[in-house]
Amino acid sequence: MAVVPASNVLDQLRWRYAVKKFDSSKKIPAETWAALEHAIVLSPSSYGLQLWKFVVITDPALREKLKAVSWGQTQITDASHLVVFCGRTGVTEADLDRHIGRMAQVRGVSADSLADYKKMMMGTTRAGFPAVEWTARQAYIALGVFLTSAALLGVDACPMEGFENEKYDVILGLKEQGYASAVVATAGYRATDDKYAEAAKVRFDVNDVIDRR
Amino acid sequence: MAVVPASNVLDQLRWRYAVKKFDSSKKIPAETWAALEHAIVLSPSSYGLQLWKFVVITDPALREKLKAVSWGQTQITDASHLVVFCGRTGVTEADLDRHIGRMAQVRGVSADSLADYKKMMMGTTRAGFPAVEWTARQAYIALGVFLTSAALLGVDACPMEGFENEKYDVILGLKEQGYASAVVATAGYRATDDKYAEAAKVRFDVNDVIDRR
Repeated sequence: MAVVPASNVLDQLRWRYAVKKFDSSKKIPAETWAALEHAIVLSPSSYGLQLWKFVVITDPALREKLKAVSWGQTQITDASHLVVFCGRTGVTEADLDRHIGRMAQVRGVSADSLADYKKMMMGTTRAGFPAVEWTARQAYIALGVFLTSAALLGVDACPMEGFENEKYDVILGLKEQGYASAVVATAGYRATDDKYAEAAKVRFDVNDVIDRR
Repeated sequence: MAVVPASNVLDQLRWRYAVKKFDSSKKIPAETWAALEHAIVLSPSSYGLQLWKFVVITDPALREKLKAVSWGQTQITDASHLVVFCGRTGVTEADLDRHIGRMAQVRGVSADSLADYKKMMMGTTRAGFPAVEWTARQAYIALGVFLTSAALLGVDACPMEGFENEKYDVILGLKEQGYASAVVATAGYRATDDKYAEAAKVRFDVNDVIDRR
């Protein structure tokens, strides 16, 4: 365990911003991108269920199609990488079994020994708000992990909600797989003439958003 | 800008886990906690609107009350710090004006010069799903940033959805302020006898969750 100095973490969070204009000639090195994929995979989720998948798109033609249903925003085609964060549209017993199976495999125990754990999850994952909203929220955790990790690695990014979700789902064939797009992030390197890079970061004062009791 | 090596980021993400048992005698140093509050404040949000607030609770009596509506989970009282991530229950013109006002202040421009920006936000923030769900999703971004930052700083944490939201809102008086609790995180230091600390992390293989196109 090698902790990172707090000032270093905060400096990188201050360095990042929502890139409006990427330098389309600059690509994220394969090794760096692999690390960012792993950061996404390591994201926490409810019960560790990982009711998500992440579509990473580098194909230019596919990205042109997506830009047309993303208000024409140029980050969609100009960034080095595009990630669509997706959540499961429904949560079934098979989803729980998939997780239990993986847990049994990774920890070297029998799935039977996890029966109580499964029962507990069965009893609670169907309560509350709709599954698709629950899994979308999980996808936003992964988005937060991704954006923070990218900033630490010196990779620029832009989180984006301005796209037509249903059209993404059709173009990417997500519905038939039981997933829905929740949010998008583009990643790469800022263009030298992106004027937003130099704009002062706008955040409320810490005492206006942190309510200490 | 001092980037952090990818292996360091991934090591810390692997080191973290959802702590089941905190060492209640260990408190997060004030300076470290202040950094984590700043990491939360620096979290990205839609349009940078920051339609959120974060209730940080250290008062033991208040935490006992919350534990009673959190399935009795001991992290609520045993962790060094408890954070309730809250989103606005509705988005009004006043919310946009608050953001515009802060932007004008920070960037030294007039609020009038941001009229088009405000108009654009007015046109889009009312579309789509309910405001409270939208702002809850934002809160989950901040959760992801918080959990990643804590891991980097060597601070343990546990994200928690297992609590009675409406009761939290009443106990904390959130509704009258226009906020609703979305998700909770406890933070501090793992107990030496938390058996989950040594359990192998369960994640699907990267190729099972990353769909490359």
